[in-house]
Amino acid sequence: MAFTKYVELIESYLQYSLQHTNMPVSLIEPFTYIMAPGGKRIRPVLCLLAAEAVGGKPEQAVTAGAAVEILHNFTLVHDDIMDRSPIRRGNPTVHTKWDDSTAILTGDVMMAFAYRMLISSIPAQHLHSVLQSFTKGFVEVCEGQALDIEFHKRDTVSVAEYLEMIEKKTARLLELSVVIGATLGGGTDAHIELLRAFALNIGIAFQIQDDVLDLTANTHELGKTIGQDIVEGKKTILIIRATERATKPEHKELLQQFWQNNGLPVDKVPTVRTMMEELGVLTEARAMAQHYFTNAAQDIQQLPPSNARDLLFQVIEMLNVRKK
Amino acid sequence: MAFTKYVELIESYLQYSLQHTNMPVSLIEPFTYIMAPGGKRIRPVLCLLAAEAVGGKPEQAVTAGAAVEILHNFTLVHDDIMDRSPIRRGNPTVHTKWDDSTAILTGDVMMAFAYRMLISSIPAQHLHSVLQSFTKGFVEVCEGQALDIEFHKRDTVSVAEYLEMIEKKTARLLELSVVIGATLGGGTDAHIELLRAFALNIGIAFQIQDDVLDLTANTHELGKTIGQDIVEGKKTILIIRATERATKPEHKELLQQFWQNNGLPVDKVPTVRTMMEELGVLTEARAMAQHYFTNAAQDIQQLPPSNARDLLFQVIEMLNVRKK
Repeated sequence: MAFTKYVELIESYLQYSLQHTNMPVSLIEPFTYIMAPGGKRIRPVLCLLAAEAVGGKPEQAVTAGAAVEILHNFTLVHDDIMDRSPIRRGNPTVHTKWDDSTAILTGDVMMAFAYRMLISSIPAQHLHSVLQSFTKGFVEVCEGQALDIEFHKRDTVSVAEYLEMIEKKTARLLELSVVIGATLGGGTDAHIELLRAFALNIGIAFQIQDDVLDLTANTHELGKTIGQDIVEGKKTILIIRATERATKPEHKELLQQFWQNNGLPVDKVPTVRTMMEELGVLTEARAMAQHYFTNAAQDIQQLPPSNARDLLFQVIEMLNVRKK
Repeated sequence: MAFTKYVELIESYLQYSLQHTNMPVSLIEPFTYIMAPGGKRIRPVLCLLAAEAVGGKPEQAVTAGAAVEILHNFTLVHDDIMDRSPIRRGNPTVHTKWDDSTAILTGDVMMAFAYRMLISSIPAQHLHSVLQSFTKGFVEVCEGQALDIEFHKRDTVSVAEYLEMIEKKTARLLELSVVIGATLGGGTDAHIELLRAFALNIGIAFQIQDDVLDLTANTHELGKTIGQDIVEGKKTILIIRATERATKPEHKELLQQFWQNNGLPVDKVPTVRTMMEELGVLTEARAMAQHYFTNAAQDIQQLPPSNARDLLFQVIEMLNVRKK
């Protein structure tokens, strides 16, 4: 696969770093567990591709890519405790396999470890800029998660608020990945800005698509129950737009129940899906996702042609056609 | 009081920083709550004094001192969840007043916030060094807490292991405070090393004294139950040395119960205290604490005389005579 070379660079760097630390065994075990290979490593791959797309070498961005991947996995470890999620990628979550204390402390030490990696490896001329971007990402994923939790308790959320939340919770780490990669690759400000816009666009598109797939993918493809967002009371773009558009009494009634009870029983999921189709909300959300994907493609179209740019186009394709 | 000027510098900086952020209200409220004034602010005060003791101005170290204070309070928020502590400084802990999720996320965002403060304020020539020290502190407090939890599950701990744990959990943040302060104040390497040794010594002395006070202070002074460490099964220097020294069958029996059951019922506390006195462990621990306090004084004796150095001597005195 076209991305193998990049994934391998990241995997071997992560493996080496985790093996060469004298951290207490009670931390290094869960840390190694959550970082286990097998995932797409989308964030570090974007980081390396961004470095190459602006004329640098992927090797220049490996440490930074690994740090972003650690930051991403830190959010998974802590969010899974907050969400009481038992399973992640088919395996028990850290707080389930160990306990809450271990999961809290593992997440904490992961961030400390990521900063240590960056501070000891990033060339002096880029240190301030890279750490500033990395820390902005760290602040905003926390804020995004806080907004997500706040929305859970609220009885109205606007599209603008939804977009702010997913920008912080999902898009910011993708943005961070390409900005740091392009900085380390010696990119111009203009090229860095194009890559930032590209990553923001794919991040938003990805999340909207995620909301759609929750209700439309088949169970096997999705790897989780259809309509889980509905059951859990998640304030998705579908729910927010349906609430804005609904006029029929039965639709208004159903949505009112959703907001009042913070979710609906699983047997209501088919009714919700029918409502979403009648209101045109699924079609609209798919079009929104396409719009952001198209913007992303237009952003990188303005970069000089390169193998890395071709692969960035492939990333858009890959995310666009995904079924889960 | 001699330290008022320094405490006020820190308080006003913290207050300003917390008021001028657009963080979601669900994070800024618990963050502000845990950072509320009233404490001794020993770490930032040491940071400011270190800057002044090497010839700089305390103002040069205010941001760094505030960042270390945030790091310290981050450990409190997360450790209190792990220890299920309901009360901190006479008030409900963050996870008690809000919930575990809020406390996890508040701790996370506090670290992100501390890094952001440092990155945006530390002069370029000191950025790498300050962030390196700060991150070392961040890594090691996590490791110290992990060791503390590991010890809880173990049935033997050596004095060397105990010292490693308290160096990481307690002393490292004091060390960090003076190293960063002295760096920002433009101190020489030799002066920075003297201050580092001073802080390490007071950190160890402080923790040993804490172990002694748990068993000897009167309840009113301590503000908590006498012998709480015994009840909770904490592997203090007293327990470790008593286990090494005990020869009488009744002492060995009592200690074996402690290690096997991870603590003893509260009605055994007077018996434990009598045993500690008979074994000479309390006297020995007090002498150890004095030894480290004396070393600390000798370290700063080698700094050039200054008002700040006088105040550092006062810090030793203050910690040495404390009753709780």
